[in-house]
Amino acid sequence: MTVSGHQLIGQTSYRGDQAAIEPVNPATGKRLEPDFPGASERDIEQACSLALEAFDEYRETSLEARASFLDTIATEIEALGSSLIERAVAETGLPKSRIEGERGRTCGQLRLFASVVRAGEWLDIRVDSALPDRKPMARVDLRQRQIPVGPVAVFGASNFPLAFSVAGGDTASALAAGCPVVVKGHSAHPGTSELVGRAIQQAAKTCQMPNGVFSLLFGAGNVIGKALVANSCIQAVGFTGSQRGGMALTSIAQQRRVPIPVFAEMSSINPVFLMPGAVAARASSIGKDYVASLNMGAGQFCTNPGLVIGCRGEDFDVFKQAAMDAVTRTDGQTMLTPDIHAAYTQGIERWSDHAAIKCLASGSQGTTPNSCQPHLFAASAADFLADEALQREIFGAASLIIECEGVEEMQHVASSLEGQLTATLHMDDDDLELAQSLLATLETKAGRILVNGWPTGVEVCHAMVHGGPFPATSDSRTTSVGSAAIRRFLRPVCYQNFPDALLPHALKEANPYKLNRLLDGEREIWGDKP
Amino acid sequence: MTVSGHQLIGQTSYRGDQAAIEPVNPATGKRLEPDFPGASERDIEQACSLALEAFDEYRETSLEARASFLDTIATEIEALGSSLIERAVAETGLPKSRIEGERGRTCGQLRLFASVVRAGEWLDIRVDSALPDRKPMARVDLRQRQIPVGPVAVFGASNFPLAFSVAGGDTASALAAGCPVVVKGHSAHPGTSELVGRAIQQAAKTCQMPNGVFSLLFGAGNVIGKALVANSCIQAVGFTGSQRGGMALTSIAQQRRVPIPVFAEMSSINPVFLMPGAVAARASSIGKDYVASLNMGAGQFCTNPGLVIGCRGEDFDVFKQAAMDAVTRTDGQTMLTPDIHAAYTQGIERWSDHAAIKCLASGSQGTTPNSCQPHLFAASAADFLADEALQREIFGAASLIIECEGVEEMQHVASSLEGQLTATLHMDDDDLELAQSLLATLETKAGRILVNGWPTGVEVCHAMVHGGPFPATSDSRTTSVGSAAIRRFLRPVCYQNFPDALLPHALKEANPYKLNRLLDGEREIWGDKP
Repeated sequence: MTVSGHQLIGQTSYRGDQAAIEPVNPATGKRLEPDFPGASERDIEQACSLALEAFDEYRETSLEARASFLDTIATEIEALGSSLIERAVAETGLPKSRIEGERGRTCGQLRLFASVVRAGEWLDIRVDSALPDRKPMARVDLRQRQIPVGPVAVFGASNFPLAFSVAGGDTASALAAGCPVVVKGHSAHPGTSELVGRAIQQAAKTCQMPNGVFSLLFGAGNVIGKALVANSCIQAVGFTGSQRGGMALTSIAQQRRVPIPVFAEMSSINPVFLMPGAVAARASSIGKDYVASLNMGAGQFCTNPGLVIGCRGEDFDVFKQAAMDAVTRTDGQTMLTPDIHAAYTQGIERWSDHAAIKCLASGSQGTTPNSCQPHLFAASAADFLADEALQREIFGAASLIIECEGVEEMQHVASSLEGQLTATLHMDDDDLELAQSLLATLETKAGRILVNGWPTGVEVCHAMVHGGPFPATSDSRTTSVGSAAIRRFLRPVCYQNFPDALLPHALKEANPYKLNRLLDGEREIWGDKP
Repeated sequence: MTVSGHQLIGQTSYRGDQAAIEPVNPATGKRLEPDFPGASERDIEQACSLALEAFDEYRETSLEARASFLDTIATEIEALGSSLIERAVAETGLPKSRIEGERGRTCGQLRLFASVVRAGEWLDIRVDSALPDRKPMARVDLRQRQIPVGPVAVFGASNFPLAFSVAGGDTASALAAGCPVVVKGHSAHPGTSELVGRAIQQAAKTCQMPNGVFSLLFGAGNVIGKALVANSCIQAVGFTGSQRGGMALTSIAQQRRVPIPVFAEMSSINPVFLMPGAVAARASSIGKDYVASLNMGAGQFCTNPGLVIGCRGEDFDVFKQAAMDAVTRTDGQTMLTPDIHAAYTQGIERWSDHAAIKCLASGSQGTTPNSCQPHLFAASAADFLADEALQREIFGAASLIIECEGVEEMQHVASSLEGQLTATLHMDDDDLELAQSLLATLETKAGRILVNGWPTGVEVCHAMVHGGPFPATSDSRTTSVGSAAIRRFLRPVCYQNFPDALLPHALKEANPYKLNRLLDGEREIWGDKP
């Protein structure tokens, strides 16, 4: 399939007529064809009204039909074959193996949501039976299900051109919930976006989904994003990107006549606490693994370990030396865009000039125009506690090691942290008491807590939380990865005293979907009761 | 127990030193003793920091300990006996039987949440087992539980001095979730609030809950509310009241350095659709029941039927006549406060002067200083569709009947509605097709949909939704009544690769709480598997 530079609006596609995105290969600095003229206000309105028109039909598709649509999207993405891989590599500078892995993850994620739709737990069916003889007042039959909120606007991320983009977690979970989706494709990888968008378009056609269940818009600058969030047809927003971007969209959403929720995943430095026992036992390997995690994908992960905290001493010096050695041996990789590269370079300069921060080691500067130079910095806990600027994220392969005078100071550092996507504990058996104490603090700071691992690599499963307190996200009560991500796009409705004929399929007395239900407060598994 | 006019801060109590609330008996217009000097900024800070201090201990209380605390609050409220009933009657003008019923509901609600805490479904335990042999990458053990968000500020409502106030649904669900609570007592019933607050204080003492798990502040005007929502210790807000009040608090919460969610239940006119079959079958009884629902508690319910929609014709005239007869026979009751009475009177004047609105009938003006005069108005659907002002709520016993030229216009009225707490269908078997068509619209407009009933009377159960799209509430994805209300105050945390010794009790492999879990995506009932 070739890339046309078109907007995809429902089942149609055409070139926009506004300022164009001109994609660049960050590894060569060269322009990639074609350009993507931006969507007009008319295009945005068209995509949003089509989404609203599609909503009534799409939200009442059967569980099997909706699941099959998600499965078919995965199949269609795989059918794009090497054209998708090549375009994504060219647009992102990421290695082919990484893109192939990400395609596997993206398709796996779509199929996970298909299985989630089929299982129907997300409908959260609750039935409180009628109690006609109750005194002093009879109770009528009451039933609850979750319904989708309406059309969702999705903003793809720069750093996951597949898994957090056009057919990424936000789109998959919104479609699973029964919400039509309008994606604003990220300007860093429009060709990749178009290819995936056409796969969704084809799947929608094959599965006879209503026109408007999916659209994909492109546009230079922020105008299109603002118009999308302000559009009255849109009922929720999924966003992955910078704090500034997330807060700007949130502000627009809150100022609408009818405010809507924005689920923005924004920034995190992912603190890693090295406990004394673990450092005594395996300082070198922790140091080596740290740098491997830090440097993965040029450090361009939301879950990059940007902060490591430990207690000063000989063991910790061994850890530091191992990390320094590893960084020194590291080659800088191509970053995603010239802008991201420039922001990284500025961040490195900021830290290099900071009186309280010492540069411990640097890797080699890569040879491509936008390649980074990995950096390891260090500061004392006292300085970290004194200056909030040391918590500011540098997006890329740079990390800060915080040296504490003892475990009490480690606890102070934990308490001082802003909200995070992840927090990590490296521990041994004899660190248990300290770990318990830190855990009580870190639970209030992060969405995911890991033991003896590294935060990069987010498993797409049922127990995953990719979220956390502000400023990691705009809503700590949600996750943007894993099956619970579907909840962002659902709301409960109660049906009181309904005749069976009028009840939605999922709530009918015969339980035709064979759903597990909360019956009079007790969990009932389909088939377990007579 | 006597009323002292004190602020309750943790286990202490003392008189405030700011401008005082001077409670009034609305049925007599006379002052009630004592006055309640307002909380100072220092008092607010003290209550909030104590709540934060209590959080770490309170959130890890065992399920049984927390449930027992909720049960004990109910017992202590009942132990207040007639002093509570008498004070509430004096402060609200509501009949004794209503207050007694509300006490039953309030205590039942606390006990429901105790049972919810014990059952532990709210923890939403998810376990994804380790897959050490998975290719290309092994998976480590991942577990998820819900944890409380932190201290919650609760704003009691004027119209439910017990069930939506100091120990009402917001407080019960927040305490159930594991969140300490700071209540801003409503200025219309401070004595009732203090008595209930002292019952909670006593229960906290008896159950050895941490100091600061509960505080109750009073204050004239809005200053105290603003300071409470702005306080950095507070992590979420529960509010029931006017749209203006809810939006003001929301705005403060969004402008904090760390924004927090505000769950505001604000306004609703609760449309009731009378379908032709139902009207043909029982026009008179529908008319009579309508006025009974409308006039209950002087119409001071969030779920008051403020709008009735039907098709012009002989049957509908019978319904109207029955409703007019019933209203004419109705005596006005005392309203909750002079301010509410004044706003009601202004609303009636506004509608009486509106060219498109006709006054059909009025009840008798009550004899107490703040009693209302029930009113029934009518307008054509065309006029309703042309003027959004006709959707504005008049809080009290006033309702608007909308006459449509046919069922198609009825559908237009449904589509034009703002978000609502409830929508109601009166139907017969032969109305099914029309009901299905209206339902598809009303599901996107309301949190609860009723058939052949009246929206007043909100059952406290598992399937209840007391919520709905904006402006009915600030977050349509939640409910403020029923067991699902607990979710507002919870957020998920994922525990990755934890040794069993470090896992929270609820997540340990042996499942000591005997919780139902989502195990590798399948619902597992405790005890069902070997």
